[in-house]
Amino acid sequence: MPLAVESSYGHLLGLHGALHVDRIASEALRGNPLGDPSERPVIVYTPPGYDPHGSRAYPALYVLHGYTGDAAALVSARPWERNVVQWIDRLIRERRMPHAILVLVDGFTRLGGSQYVDSIHNGNYATYVVQDVVGHVDAAYRTIAREGARAILGKSSGGFGSMHLVIEHPGVFTAFASHSGDSYFAYAHPPSFPSVQRTLERHDFSIATFVEVFEKKHKRTQPEYQTMEMLGYAAAYSPGSATAFDLDLPFDLRTGELLEETFARWLAFDPVERVAKSAAALRRLRLRYLDCGRRDEYGLDIGARLVAQRMRELGLAVRHEEFDDDHRNVGYRYEISLPALADVLDREA
Amino acid sequence: MPLAVESSYGHLLGLHGALHVDRIASEALRGNPLGDPSERPVIVYTPPGYDPHGSRAYPALYVLHGYTGDAAALVSARPWERNVVQWIDRLIRERRMPHAILVLVDGFTRLGGSQYVDSIHNGNYATYVVQDVVGHVDAAYRTIAREGARAILGKSSGGFGSMHLVIEHPGVFTAFASHSGDSYFAYAHPPSFPSVQRTLERHDFSIATFVEVFEKKHKRTQPEYQTMEMLGYAAAYSPGSATAFDLDLPFDLRTGELLEETFARWLAFDPVERVAKSAAALRRLRLRYLDCGRRDEYGLDIGARLVAQRMRELGLAVRHEEFDDDHRNVGYRYEISLPALADVLDREA
Amino acid sequence: MPLAVESSYGHLLGLHGALHVDRIASEALRGNPLGDPSERPVIVYTPPGYDPHGSRAYPALYVLHGYTGDAAALVSARPWERNVVQWIDRLIRERRMPHAILVLVDGFTRLGGSQYVDSIHNGNYATYVVQDVVGHVDAAYRTIAREGARAILGKSSGGFGSMHLVIEHPGVFTAFASHSGDSYFAYAHPPSFPSVQRTLERHDFSIATFVEVFEKKHKRTQPEYQTMEMLGYAAAYSPGSATAFDLDLPFDLRTGELLEETFARWLAFDPVERVAKSAAALRRLRLRYLDCGRRDEYGLDIGARLVAQRMRELGLAVRHEEFDDDHRNVGYRYEISLPALADVLDREA
Amino acid sequence: MPLAVESSYGHLLGLHGALHVDRIASEALRGNPLGDPSERPVIVYTPPGYDPHGSRAYPALYVLHGYTGDAAALVSARPWERNVVQWIDRLIRERRMPHAILVLVDGFTRLGGSQYVDSIHNGNYATYVVQDVVGHVDAAYRTIAREGARAILGKSSGGFGSMHLVIEHPGVFTAFASHSGDSYFAYAHPPSFPSVQRTLERHDFSIATFVEVFEKKHKRTQPEYQTMEMLGYAAAYSPGSATAFDLDLPFDLRTGELLEETFARWLAFDPVERVAKSAAALRRLRLRYLDCGRRDEYGLDIGARLVAQRMRELGLAVRHEEFDDDHRNVGYRYEISLPALADVLDREA
Repeated sequence: MPLAVESSYGHLLGLHGALHVDRIASEALRGNPLGDPSERPVIVYTPPGYDPHGSRAYPALYVLHGYTGDAAALVSARPWERNVVQWIDRLIRERRMPHAILVLVDGFTRLGGSQYVDSIHNGNYATYVVQDVVGHVDAAYRTIAREGARAILGKSSGGFGSMHLVIEHPGVFTAFASHSGDSYFAYAHPPSFPSVQRTLERHDFSIATFVEVFEKKHKRTQPEYQTMEMLGYAAAYSPGSATAFDLDLPFDLRTGELLEETFARWLAFDPVERVAKSAAALRRLRLRYLDCGRRDEYGLDIGARLVAQRMRELGLAVRHEEFDDDHRNVGYRYEISLPALADVLDREA
Repeated sequence: MPLAVESSYGHLLGLHGALHVDRIASEALRGNPLGDPSERPVIVYTPPGYDPHGSRAYPALYVLHGYTGDAAALVSARPWERNVVQWIDRLIRERRMPHAILVLVDGFTRLGGSQYVDSIHNGNYATYVVQDVVGHVDAAYRTIAREGARAILGKSSGGFGSMHLVIEHPGVFTAFASHSGDSYFAYAHPPSFPSVQRTLERHDFSIATFVEVFEKKHKRTQPEYQTMEMLGYAAAYSPGSATAFDLDLPFDLRTGELLEETFARWLAFDPVERVAKSAAALRRLRLRYLDCGRRDEYGLDIGARLVAQRMRELGLAVRHEEFDDDHRNVGYRYEISLPALADVLDREA
Repeated sequence: MPLAVESSYGHLLGLHGALHVDRIASEALRGNPLGDPSERPVIVYTPPGYDPHGSRAYPALYVLHGYTGDAAALVSARPWERNVVQWIDRLIRERRMPHAILVLVDGFTRLGGSQYVDSIHNGNYATYVVQDVVGHVDAAYRTIAREGARAILGKSSGGFGSMHLVIEHPGVFTAFASHSGDSYFAYAHPPSFPSVQRTLERHDFSIATFVEVFEKKHKRTQPEYQTMEMLGYAAAYSPGSATAFDLDLPFDLRTGELLEETFARWLAFDPVERVAKSAAALRRLRLRYLDCGRRDEYGLDIGARLVAQRMRELGLAVRHEEFDDDHRNVGYRYEISLPALADVLDREA
Repeated sequence: MPLAVESSYGHLLGLHGALHVDRIASEALRGNPLGDPSERPVIVYTPPGYDPHGSRAYPALYVLHGYTGDAAALVSARPWERNVVQWIDRLIRERRMPHAILVLVDGFTRLGGSQYVDSIHNGNYATYVVQDVVGHVDAAYRTIAREGARAILGKSSGGFGSMHLVIEHPGVFTAFASHSGDSYFAYAHPPSFPSVQRTLERHDFSIATFVEVFEKKHKRTQPEYQTMEMLGYAAAYSPGSATAFDLDLPFDLRTGELLEETFARWLAFDPVERVAKSAAALRRLRLRYLDCGRRDEYGLDIGARLVAQRMRELGLAVRHEEFDDDHRNVGYRYEISLPALADVLDREA
């Protein structure tokens, strides 16, 4: 006989806590130029013992997925591995971290990701997270609804987003963890530009044509994914206007030459560049956590070193760890970051 | 405000139908020597309009996952791709196939997969599928509970399992689809043996030691996955006894030399070998569907050609397709197989 | 001012000894069906102090190149590496081995290599080596012209050729060294068959068409090289007739299925199979040397283990070494094999 | 009977012309700080009919090898391919280009290459080429000893060197061909810096330690080659002093951060940067030839586009070709460049 359907997917994942899939109508994303849905899923994990009608309130950890991810991908299951929800459930069960709520944010766009920034081209994804998602969670769940009880974390573009949001919206989160987070764009992105130029040339130099072809394919090549990724970054960092596919690329579309002026707009988002200008926002944090594998294909280990260095130059403590791995499948690092974040959060309302 | 939790994950996947995650206590797997759970999830997709209390009954398609997969992995989501549940939902919505129930079977073991065969070492996974899973589904859902309304399909080891079950248990399913299914073991498996021998030598020639090390690692290498895979096959095809890790390997553990006698036990499961001996079971099928990419890394395209050839030699019709792709991410083939299977099933109770 | 041109290439390689490039008219290869030249280069290295008119005579080491190699490739130079001639020159200079002559044999064919066997399709390459090349060297150089002062060695197909010639022509060489030599064909070759079948299918199933296309290309793909390689083996092991491109392939050209009968003809050349039948030939050797990297992509480390095991089962001593490397660029192993071989050879006429 | 030893290696390569290996004592390289030999090989190809005592004089084409190459590697043979000497010999034989002398220059250093620039750290490799090598060739061979009868070409670092020398030493060569030549360093080099930083960190941040370890290894990894390569470039573009291994790296050795000031010294050598400042030198050329594969791993196709664009902006004609290939084994492009260069050279003394 079938069990109750409630929390069934959580059960499938072997969770002791519960998984809730909500949908929110985002004010910030309404009518976004790219045409992505403004109604978005929010997946909320509540720990064992959570009682929606009880008096206990919980700190909340917000998780941002990486580029080409979405909220659903964050809860995808792979045998012999644990996703972030399985990690927190296990860590709480083994009393290795305090009880907390975990919130999985959806930041996907037609171009593969929003980088969690407000963009005239994509819509206001930063505002969406700090207002619409946080607002919903505080309203619908028993959270300790204040800065001191909220942390944010993520991997790759999600790590970038975490740093972006604590800098851009001080007062919302009191701690962040960036796993292999995008940074030091000087190394991370230009190596892809030749491949992107070639790919767009094969599509008559048209972004729209490329996107349509991409979407119709059963399977995409590595250069095609790389191209989509750089379009996603351009849509976030150097949008042209509020018209779909009107992006300023950081290279000359015909020759591939780097366009310093446009790339400077990208660099304005680079955490390495921003730390020195964001002392106040960073100072109010209780934990600044960065890690990266020393074989990261995008050189993000160099980026993490530099972000950590810049923060220390401001007199701020940083927890910075390196490990022997590349960029992929480093979800096991949640075992470190989740307790570290939860430990600095308020536990009492 | 959160939506109801019911069918929430299905909603996350954008389904119009509903997703149910049941748990069944399998008689066939009870007390299995490898110590895997005998309580198993069964994920059931019901199409739009499905009414558990209504009078309409549906044909059912059973899906078997591949090696290192499990039921949860079958419903995992990836942006820009569709899993099998998203495919059937879309095909039904677009009226490209009749309404049907889809059942996702869980055949995972500690060694990464059961191949859906009865094994003294693993437990009786074939029996589990045809009795426990089919029994549960027919009892709990409004299916047309007979051979003429059941089909089975899968990819890779799931394709193998589909062929195995129609041969081994005639009368349960009336059609199968094998996508890149394991076959022609002469090509598919021996290329891995040197790597497996080396890996086990590094673990003191002990399967138990290897498995424990494997399970504790955050991340595994390609040879480690390859080794686990061959152990999984040995557990299915050439078990030693009902003691965990007592497997007969098809090569000499010290030198790596192929052991013809043990490998012959594997070949006894090879679809290419079995077709000629299974004329009656195959003849009663309404559809025999095989496909494979022509760049399959395991040479399974050769296997599919040979299975198709052998069937035709028996005077049986086969639908056999090839396409330009390798072994990975060929889920888009469900677009072909799901309607093809559903079309031959009874639609009236 | 330019130095004299004599021995100039040897000078370029930094040799203290001298390099001679002779051309011989091979009786054995005359009129070979494949149309390869029967006039062949023989490259001879003579050690420092060698005097063509003196009284001192030297033992001789014969080197066989691998598949897709030729005599010229054996003396090719790469910075930071040493070719076999540079190795012997250095080892002699450092007094780590006795003075010896080194002979580089050319066994290239239009299909990329002869495997140094007599074939009705290719010509008689075994006979060519043991009669024409050895005959020329003994006639033109001051060698100790007898079995006890001759050794043979090579890498990959050259290692195979070394084993083939000591077995097939006992009495010519008294020692061999096989570096990563072809053996245990059951693992080494069938993994390539699917790729070869697909490639030939793309060329209308015509070997002649494929070869012509291959020869005209500026650059070839991995499957194209793999295909040529298997054609080369078929030309050696399973020729059809003395007509160019009339080869028996070990798989069905249309389906890719292994043809046991033809593959048995290949196995008749497999060193693993031959050892037991070649006790007398092997027993008269003073040194049997085998080595292979434990990451060999063709599983030849398994082959070397088995050849060594089979020899030991005959009561014969074997020097068998393994090292942590793959199949490529293992020329540094000459540092071990050259002195080992030279040490067992007669030094006095 | 052995043929005469003279020109034997050329015979091995199947040449109709002759190959001469000279050695010159380079004034420019004498006492170079890195300790590389100042006596250098110069390999000279003379066409069929060349008579050292005759009256006919020839134009000369100078070939520069790539990084990790040397003069010997330029004449290395590979079955189914042609080296540059085999190409010119064939093109002359087939009357597809006029008779010419081909000169292979040796620019190897302990760090893998000199980039053919004068460096306080390496020695004066530009001067060595234009004075010592050209001087020797004009003295020892029947060349038309003037600018109008000399061209220079090369691949990769050799293409860079060709552009460098026509710019730095106007009046020596009247044409150049750069195949996949180093250019647009902004894309070509920084992608390697993270890997180099990690590698040097593993060697206690010591260049000397790294070089010694590198030289002792039988086989090097990809990051090790990459590291040596960047050291080679630093030795050429940003030497520290005339002390071995005193190099200024373009990144912070501890963090990996790009050092703009040092990298600017590299960019001062970038052909893309130099064209605009070198109008006079470039204008006197009769042919400016550039090509590159559109899948070049270092983005050198972008570089070639930009160099061509910059030249056209000066009102100069450029022959610029692209082809569908990557960076490796593009020697078949000599078929285009050799006749193109020879065609613009003086043929009459």
